[in-house]
Amino acid sequence: MPSKKLGRQTVALANPPAIIGHANVVGKKEGDGPLADSFDHIEQDDTFGEKTWEKAETAMQKMAFASALDKAGQAASNLDYLFAGDLLNQCIGSAFAVRGQDVPFFGLYGACSTMGESLSLAAMSIDGGFAQFAGAVTSSHFCSAERQYRTPLEYGGQRTPTAQWTVTGSGAVILAKEGPGPYVTHITTGKVVDKGIKDANNMGAAMAPAAYDTLTAHFKDTGRQPSFYDLIVTGDLGKLGKEILLDFFAQDGIELTNYDDCGTMIFDLKKQDVHCGGSGCGCSATVLTGYLLNGMREGKWSRILFCPTGALLSPTSTQQGESIPCICHAVAISMSK
Amino acid sequence: MPSKKLGRQTVALANPPAIIGHANVVGKKEGDGPLADSFDHIEQDDTFGEKTWEKAETAMQKMAFASALDKAGQAASNLDYLFAGDLLNQCIGSAFAVRGQDVPFFGLYGACSTMGESLSLAAMSIDGGFAQFAGAVTSSHFCSAERQYRTPLEYGGQRTPTAQWTVTGSGAVILAKEGPGPYVTHITTGKVVDKGIKDANNMGAAMAPAAYDTLTAHFKDTGRQPSFYDLIVTGDLGKLGKEILLDFFAQDGIELTNYDDCGTMIFDLKKQDVHCGGSGCGCSATVLTGYLLNGMREGKWSRILFCPTGALLSPTSTQQGESIPCICHAVAISMSK
Repeated sequence: MPSKKLGRQTVALANPPAIIGHANVVGKKEGDGPLADSFDHIEQDDTFGEKTWEKAETAMQKMAFASALDKAGQAASNLDYLFAGDLLNQCIGSAFAVRGQDVPFFGLYGACSTMGESLSLAAMSIDGGFAQFAGAVTSSHFCSAERQYRTPLEYGGQRTPTAQWTVTGSGAVILAKEGPGPYVTHITTGKVVDKGIKDANNMGAAMAPAAYDTLTAHFKDTGRQPSFYDLIVTGDLGKLGKEILLDFFAQDGIELTNYDDCGTMIFDLKKQDVHCGGSGCGCSATVLTGYLLNGMREGKWSRILFCPTGALLSPTSTQQGESIPCICHAVAISMSK
Repeated sequence: MPSKKLGRQTVALANPPAIIGHANVVGKKEGDGPLADSFDHIEQDDTFGEKTWEKAETAMQKMAFASALDKAGQAASNLDYLFAGDLLNQCIGSAFAVRGQDVPFFGLYGACSTMGESLSLAAMSIDGGFAQFAGAVTSSHFCSAERQYRTPLEYGGQRTPTAQWTVTGSGAVILAKEGPGPYVTHITTGKVVDKGIKDANNMGAAMAPAAYDTLTAHFKDTGRQPSFYDLIVTGDLGKLGKEILLDFFAQDGIELTNYDDCGTMIFDLKKQDVHCGGSGCGCSATVLTGYLLNGMREGKWSRILFCPTGALLSPTSTQQGESIPCICHAVAISMSK
């Protein structure tokens, strides 16, 4: 078997898997934002009819998964693997969403980078000859995340200027060995990068170095210039993290003119009181499965580099004075193989 | 590329990866147990010289990983991927252990099944042509787990008869495309199984149906009889879960004479006051990387079916009255390809 490795961190898939279905579900606030048209389902009731926020997140993830399967014309029982994860302690959003579904399951934790991680592993499972069909699903919910990472909503805690707003949303992608594009062509897997940021309310600054590290590795490994892509998009660096990333590249003499961040795209930062922008596994997942993949199908872009970012902290590690380890995975998606 | 799929849940690896290094580190209580001789390092101080239990777990995981790399004669910078996970909220044991290491990282959450999940994905990354070398690491620590899942140690909470004792230990495996055995030959990926058990102090009963489901799938998919293996070993069903699994097979007219459970092997259940036995990611990981793989190399067994089990609950899901979704991944390990 020929090696698929390009440099240290990147693989080029020999037979790029096709994205045959993608769908998302979001909450009311996301539905009030600039990307409203790209969401499959906007739920006005953030409880999703459930008694707890955690169960609401599970319900939302099940809806997104079912919808993506439906669009792909597949049943869960046709999937060889499902790769899923979320932000909740012990990833219960995903474990409970997949309960009762007839599908072999790999649970992941990559914080807000999980859509990149799940997409990478799902694509590799197909390209490696282990699967015909594989799914990648992830979610986050503002209310379950707030009370777990910060304070219960009832407390009404004030947010710092660098804080971000956890997206209530779930995105699901179904990949297949054969099918029309878009295709997953390259995967650059991130290393854990920690530059010493300790402020859990400034994740953009913590994650930007990880995004820079992975993007730099991707360009080096593939020999591609940033301009090769019609759009390079990070997960949830937010306004500040995005500026920091642009600064890093400027120091290398590179001006990223084709770059944006899902965290700044999903909300109207001026009107929606979300400070530095959106965050959470659901942020990059819903932007990918709506605005980005729809746009590719409509001919808006033919080559995208999708780079979700994750802050691998916990409330315990923050209380113990630790800085924040971060990671970013890059997935190249193209309309042609 | 020829399909590697056997039936619904199993893949047969075309070029079974070799286990070129394996190591473990455990705490004092594990070192007082019947498998003491099989551990590479028994630490008498469960703090591992750190100020918190979480940092102790990270330190322990770093030691196990470094030791496995050393035995494999490899540096972290030679690994194409590291697959790692643990039980702590947001998997901080692993994220902090891998911080600063030069290796592309996939974080996993499979509760106590994580050694099966990481071994599966590491082997698939090599067999699929994406890697020459890959690592699988996991850990658990009694003290970090107790205060997270149950009560702080200082509380002195009483344990129910069906409770298990979280193993303080970490195991690491380094896989390579080429090398002397043992080899990872088959992987059966589990589905989430939940038969309605709600008692978080009876995880053996909750997990046994998942183990039965995966084992049954493995035998069906491969056409192998249980007797094909010299030893079939589950992760941490403990005394009660083990009896339940034997009962399930007895109802199918199958007597499993070559079966044991890491949770009952790692401690002396009569003398060590651990009620139903050991549990935690570190349980199956340390038994695999010591007693089992050492035994294979010494000629004790030539074919093993390693089946770690995981309970995908959280304290929050238990408080919300949910039952416990469980999973089991089976990995066939053989001295010959």
